[in-house]
Amino acid sequence: MKELVFGVDLGGTNIKVGLVSAEGTIVHRHQAETLGERGPAAVAERICQTARQCVEAADVGPDAVAGIGVGSPGTIDLENGVVLFSPNLPGWDDIPLRRMIEDDIGLPCALDNDANVAALAEQWAGAGRGASSLVLLTLGTGIGGGIVLDGRVWHGANGVAGEIGHMSINPDGPRCGCGNLGCLEAYASATAMVRRMHQAIQSGRETSLAPRLDDLTAQDIHKAALAGDKAARDNIEATGRYLGVGVSNIMHILNPQVIAFSGGVAAAGDMLMEPLLDEMEKRTLEASRRDVKVCFAELPRDAGVIGAARCFMLR
Amino acid sequence: MKELVFGVDLGGTNIKVGLVSAEGTIVHRHQAETLGERGPAAVAERICQTARQCVEAADVGPDAVAGIGVGSPGTIDLENGVVLFSPNLPGWDDIPLRRMIEDDIGLPCALDNDANVAALAEQWAGAGRGASSLVLLTLGTGIGGGIVLDGRVWHGANGVAGEIGHMSINPDGPRCGCGNLGCLEAYASATAMVRRMHQAIQSGRETSLAPRLDDLTAQDIHKAALAGDKAARDNIEATGRYLGVGVSNIMHILNPQVIAFSGGVAAAGDMLMEPLLDEMEKRTLEASRRDVKVCFAELPRDAGVIGAARCFMLR
Repeated sequence: MKELVFGVDLGGTNIKVGLVSAEGTIVHRHQAETLGERGPAAVAERICQTARQCVEAADVGPDAVAGIGVGSPGTIDLENGVVLFSPNLPGWDDIPLRRMIEDDIGLPCALDNDANVAALAEQWAGAGRGASSLVLLTLGTGIGGGIVLDGRVWHGANGVAGEIGHMSINPDGPRCGCGNLGCLEAYASATAMVRRMHQAIQSGRETSLAPRLDDLTAQDIHKAALAGDKAARDNIEATGRYLGVGVSNIMHILNPQVIAFSGGVAAAGDMLMEPLLDEMEKRTLEASRRDVKVCFAELPRDAGVIGAARCFMLR
Repeated sequence: MKELVFGVDLGGTNIKVGLVSAEGTIVHRHQAETLGERGPAAVAERICQTARQCVEAADVGPDAVAGIGVGSPGTIDLENGVVLFSPNLPGWDDIPLRRMIEDDIGLPCALDNDANVAALAEQWAGAGRGASSLVLLTLGTGIGGGIVLDGRVWHGANGVAGEIGHMSINPDGPRCGCGNLGCLEAYASATAMVRRMHQAIQSGRETSLAPRLDDLTAQDIHKAALAGDKAARDNIEATGRYLGVGVSNIMHILNPQVIAFSGGVAAAGDMLMEPLLDEMEKRTLEASRRDVKVCFAELPRDAGVIGAARCFMLR
């Protein structure tokens, strides 16, 4: 009985492999370093090797596995299973990863972008369990996103839908790394939080973080806020309010059943969520928000693996 | 052979009925005044009467018609075929229009919102012919919208998706009728254009429109711009630029195959489209816009009728 599917979370640092059940649970997991500097062929080989080690350790027999799903960072040619470009895997240009894996492991493979598979995992087995539509925002160095509609990833005309971080919430706002002005990412990513903290310090705002100006992180801001630092707390509140603008826009446009947040910035918890919800309530009609759940993701650790397996199951 | 479907465009002023073929052409059409003041039951009766007159005049025999699709203004309970509320049809609260029509005409009926059916018409038989995803923005007194994905209307969690006009493009922008700040509608609707023109006149800007301050329309602004009025031209250019911000956001989030514009403001044509596309190019990555067509709608007159029929065909 082929009841299990390999889910592979391919990251810049680690390859995480899980054997995922039809119910969305990881029955066994295995991990290896990516060692991306050895090049794409070596990485593909390590993915397959790690998967084989995983199935051996799980003691389920190779016949139990139907296939392998891979979530990869970067831009994916979905039709051909090719990684077109990946900022976290230097030198990965036009790599036919799906075929490389299929040839090595002898199982059918499905490939999608890591943000998309994470959204799929949350809809299937996480914050969106029981719902068919979910928008996930990953709040890290940048803001990534994935959109699941009717239980499937919405890819768009050329596979780049879900770039929610590059929605402009102010035509004359700060310039984003993408070139656009006022992107949500330029207001509510970890990078944006640090930049605003710098500005506050430079404008003379009193804060315990002033001596750490040079290597400040969003985590530092969160810790300082927990310790009662008013400037740090204001910073997180502003981040929540900007996210509330973005969430309102997603509600008005897509009106999904669930809008969920993951990533390092989401660790700020209620301190982020309260101003976010407050802003969202001010900006949306009751009809637009009534049936929409706004919450944190529930699978921050396993979404990559579970979603990659789901991606294979839906292929 | 039941090859035809009634498409009904129910407006505040007129009821337009068309017999629509499986290819999306109107083979016969008939029109009547809505006379909304006579109440919902009378309007439902007029819809059916107009449909019967249409089929008689078309001389196709009643057996040729498979059913009736209706696009209604307002908020629709899709599951139950009920008009919950309609600003253009006073007194319409919780009107079971689908059942009323079915009982009268003896044919199955499908009901959706007028903006949604217009988007469906454009995707099926207009600007999006051959494409499966399209976002339509209707630029009038307000900005309405409809989203078609995989050839079907995307309704969202509680049927209110596609409120694209209420996407905020500036958290501190002008207050919109909906209560939110900086909605696209507050920047790029006919109402917003007139308000900006008022502001320009009041701040002493030279324009041929100054004497018409009290009953200025977006159409007046367009005419003045065509006649060389610089202030009017700037007004339309700014409208185009704001729409360019909105279009960029839709590209980043949904990456649809087509983004189309209809409504009175769209009559400004190139004068509006050129700054729109210029702004959009500045704000989007080549990958996000490459396969997206941005254009005017092709069925401004018939989208309501054709889309309503399509809505029935897809029920």
